[in-house]
Amino acid sequence: MEKYDLIVIGSGPAGQRATIQASKFGKRAALIEKLEVIGGTAINTGTIPSKTIREAVLHLSGYQYQSIYGPNYRVKERITIADLSFRALNVIKTEIDVVHAQLSRNGIEVVTGTASFVDPHNIHVTNSRGQSNYETDYIIIATGTKPTESPLVPFNNRTIINSDQILHIPEIPKTMIVVGGGVIGVEYTCMFATLGTRVTLIEKRPRLLEFADAEMVEALCYHLRDRRVTLRLNEEVESVEETPDHVVVANLKSKKKVSGDTLLYAVGRQGNIDELNLAAGGLEADARGRISVDGDYRTKQPHIFAVGDVIGFPSLGSVSMEQGRIATAKAFGIPINSNRANYPYGIYTIPEISFIGKTEEQLTDEGVPYEVGMAYFREIARGQIRGDTTGRLKLIFDPSTKQLLGVHIIGEGASELLHIGQAVFALGGTVEYFVDTVFNYPTLAECYKAAAFNGLNRLVRS
Amino acid sequence: MEKYDLIVIGSGPAGQRATIQASKFGKRAALIEKLEVIGGTAINTGTIPSKTIREAVLHLSGYQYQSIYGPNYRVKERITIADLSFRALNVIKTEIDVVHAQLSRNGIEVVTGTASFVDPHNIHVTNSRGQSNYETDYIIIATGTKPTESPLVPFNNRTIINSDQILHIPEIPKTMIVVGGGVIGVEYTCMFATLGTRVTLIEKRPRLLEFADAEMVEALCYHLRDRRVTLRLNEEVESVEETPDHVVVANLKSKKKVSGDTLLYAVGRQGNIDELNLAAGGLEADARGRISVDGDYRTKQPHIFAVGDVIGFPSLGSVSMEQGRIATAKAFGIPINSNRANYPYGIYTIPEISFIGKTEEQLTDEGVPYEVGMAYFREIARGQIRGDTTGRLKLIFDPSTKQLLGVHIIGEGASELLHIGQAVFALGGTVEYFVDTVFNYPTLAECYKAAAFNGLNRLVRS
Repeated sequence: MEKYDLIVIGSGPAGQRATIQASKFGKRAALIEKLEVIGGTAINTGTIPSKTIREAVLHLSGYQYQSIYGPNYRVKERITIADLSFRALNVIKTEIDVVHAQLSRNGIEVVTGTASFVDPHNIHVTNSRGQSNYETDYIIIATGTKPTESPLVPFNNRTIINSDQILHIPEIPKTMIVVGGGVIGVEYTCMFATLGTRVTLIEKRPRLLEFADAEMVEALCYHLRDRRVTLRLNEEVESVEETPDHVVVANLKSKKKVSGDTLLYAVGRQGNIDELNLAAGGLEADARGRISVDGDYRTKQPHIFAVGDVIGFPSLGSVSMEQGRIATAKAFGIPINSNRANYPYGIYTIPEISFIGKTEEQLTDEGVPYEVGMAYFREIARGQIRGDTTGRLKLIFDPSTKQLLGVHIIGEGASELLHIGQAVFALGGTVEYFVDTVFNYPTLAECYKAAAFNGLNRLVRS
Repeated sequence: MEKYDLIVIGSGPAGQRATIQASKFGKRAALIEKLEVIGGTAINTGTIPSKTIREAVLHLSGYQYQSIYGPNYRVKERITIADLSFRALNVIKTEIDVVHAQLSRNGIEVVTGTASFVDPHNIHVTNSRGQSNYETDYIIIATGTKPTESPLVPFNNRTIINSDQILHIPEIPKTMIVVGGGVIGVEYTCMFATLGTRVTLIEKRPRLLEFADAEMVEALCYHLRDRRVTLRLNEEVESVEETPDHVVVANLKSKKKVSGDTLLYAVGRQGNIDELNLAAGGLEADARGRISVDGDYRTKQPHIFAVGDVIGFPSLGSVSMEQGRIATAKAFGIPINSNRANYPYGIYTIPEISFIGKTEEQLTDEGVPYEVGMAYFREIARGQIRGDTTGRLKLIFDPSTKQLLGVHIIGEGASELLHIGQAVFALGGTVEYFVDTVFNYPTLAECYKAAAFNGLNRLVRS
């Protein structure tokens, strides 16, 4: 029987990084993947295709140039699903190649098959060719999640779909219902609204994206409504049906009926744990299939870790990779630097939202005094040149020490731009860093300087 | 007679920032501008229009999407000068508005007229309405530059032009001669080559952009030639003529003849000092109209400073603003933090180049040991999604301390992306910062992490 130092189950971002880290430590590691293709949800149905579709939407719709050439400007008149999937399939293929190359360069053994626990140190793998058993010192579970099924929703992989099935819809719908105002629901709402689809977004909580700064979410809602999105907050779906003439209807608990050509059900995701036989490993999961871990990503079995979406929030590829890296280091007792407070959030809405540190609401709740500095992309030459007159950058800082407490950005390129603030935040810089720094002219990065001046001016006044 | 604490001559980026800084210090400052419009070359004929034209070129040519949709993909089939100038004129107008608002918010008095020295403390201003004299404690000269005239070149503001006249050409030329391989010449070469113009670039030095890292310039040259640019390095123009059938011919010293529809003469710029009567201020300029200053931007008169393009290299709007800020602070003896080593360079070629710190050649000359870490945009998911398969990011670092010594980027968005590296560089971070940092996924910013891994792996191997 094969014996490993580490077995990682699941080849998404978390699993990849965990295994590669083990190889860097000189350990023998195997990566078990159930599907024929490597890469997990991130590459195959999640982040990569959705961000590629988004890029195609931004380009073909002419969105970024409508403030210059007018609201009806289009780069392509009739946009089809094929226009979107063409790019996505290409990028998926390339990314799978890149991951394969990376794993093979690092000498990782990839095993295709379904893994399950035999006991806490033995993993059984079944595939079409047979079965094997593997013994291992450490195990990292990185099996990810799948869309939540609901008995209320008669999925048909055509007009009533989950987020893994976006490219299966026959054409860009004229009207659409999106159920779920989390990251996935809001991102797809933005894309279809930008394509001209009339979208109704239904969310049972009173606001969207509760973990983000309220001012940024407010701006996002403004832009959603500007794109004719109907927001139905505090509303719950009771049932979904398709009429004989193929209209999809969502019946809300409030007795409202919402109809559309297509319904995307994006209410949460469920941990992929059904086939793991967790009990044999001495483990269990909660009702949503999530495995609980401590600060080191260790399960209640000290040699078994869980990372990535299967442990829940934030379910971001970027953070999952880091969790994989940390879990491997913790398993082998190797010191590692990683500060959770410095993890960024990137939400690929239109416009993009990205942030780091605390929100105004969190600081107010905690009773921490702060001041803010705002900059508007439209005040900056690059904003005018790009025609992005909607973007905003907010610095939150301590009024006495001038330490950065948070950076919140909405606008195209936000997820890139954030990393400037992140470096200053992580390296303990103050808002004065931005005042004393020369920025390339014209860049959006100059917003940091404008926001710093704005914030410091408020201090002088008070 | 009006008495001021500070008089600033010239309303470009350097002059604006100098005056606003004085106002922030509570000083009475006047800004004298010869032209009816404010903003100097940067807004009216230089940076802003050229970067706006560049943005229009990138969009309308379909350049950024050709790696996805094929090399003949275009967003607009026939691109005219009007397509380019339409946007430029709009952005110029808005930027003038923004500057006016900023100056008036800061209580700056703007005087329209031509300034000249009466004596070292008195400035005479003439305009169409009359003349005035102003007395002042301090003076900052920020008059900028104009394109160099040459008796060899029969400018006609139509087919034989300087860089201020780009929008005066009647149509996008089929063939073009660019004389001068500095920033301006190379930037316009890139724009016209991207529009499909066959460009011949003539430069008397053996390479382009001598202050930039050789590897980045080599990559740029590769892309220039890929766009069918002919580079004539080590070549000098002896004369320029227009034939009776309107073909422009450049006769080179090597006896070659280069012909084209249009010739852009972009060989250096000349300081705007002719009307200043410098001698009355006890000052002088060199043959190219440049005023020499010390490290504090002080001329040989201790109360007179000079900043911006009129003092020469680097002639970047970003740096000029900082020089203005520093000069004002030095004049009034107020402490200021500014570290020249942290100034970035942004060159808006296609693809963009941006860098900070030392180049490999500089470090080799200085005998400083270094290691490099490279990342290629194509390895990064965002590079695939954007279709930017040409970008590269290079970190140069000290192999023992791992301190960053330089960051060099070529690729779209380079000038924004650089500021992440700049923050780490300025705040004394090491390449390990990038290893331990979570980057939004998928972003180009992830290149920093990939480059750091690459660089650190090289160390382990050696």
